[in-house]
Amino acid sequence: MVTGVHHVGIAVADLDESIDLYRSALGAELLHRARSETDGIEAAFLRTGGGEVELMSATTPDSPVGKFLAKRGPGLHHVAFGVTDIGKALSDARAAGLELIDAEPRQGMHGSLIAFVHPKSMGGVLTELVQT
Amino acid sequence: MVTGVHHVGIAVADLDESIDLYRSALGAELLHRARSETDGIEAAFLRTGGGEVELMSATTPDSPVGKFLAKRGPGLHHVAFGVTDIGKALSDARAAGLELIDAEPRQGMHGSLIAFVHPKSMGGVLTELVQT
Repeated sequence: MVTGVHHVGIAVADLDESIDLYRSALGAELLHRARSETDGIEAAFLRTGGGEVELMSATTPDSPVGKFLAKRGPGLHHVAFGVTDIGKALSDARAAGLELIDAEPRQGMHGSLIAFVHPKSMGGVLTELVQT
Repeated sequence: MVTGVHHVGIAVADLDESIDLYRSALGAELLHRARSETDGIEAAFLRTGGGEVELMSATTPDSPVGKFLAKRGPGLHHVAFGVTDIGKALSDARAAGLELIDAEPRQGMHGSLIAFVHPKSMGGVLTELVQT
């Protein structure tokens, strides 16, 4: 079951500047910040009211976020939906004919399980499923 | 005060197909659907768990969404944050040095008041404020 929009992922050029922007413009609060060598990102999760924003900078230019930034520049990158059971959500997605980037759930940041659905199956939207 | 992510706005090529996709892939429920001649869009709001997605198709190619689709293709278009007082939110945004697309709140769909902040002030992210 989908519980809602878990977070919105935003590709940024400068992580520190972007954290400051979301703090000053939206009163957002920094929840955690970490590097993922797997994904080639340094990311910060910020809470703004009941919602979360993930700001991501690339640690290498040939990472997916690095390529995104080179092609499109900073901006909206993905939307993540919270799910209660990611295994079930992935099998439902497969049954609905969606192309999965992650056939199996993998470890996300901070203990979550995540999987991405290919944007070509979701009208151009890179879509993440997150079980916290 | 920001209450959270109100919705994620997605530009789509075909509104009916996209509604079906979000229903089948994410179990989303159609809340309402309407045309806005001002914005040159036909839009559908869908609820998925506690979150909302706005699917938008262009009614004319020279509308902002029509131009977005021509340039970038379907995909993530904007993120909307709920606020308790949009007048205060806009004056805070102005004080923080953000460039506003809407200097004053305007009527959104279904009784809400909305205003857009220019993406150039928000790291490339078209950002909407919504008071419901």
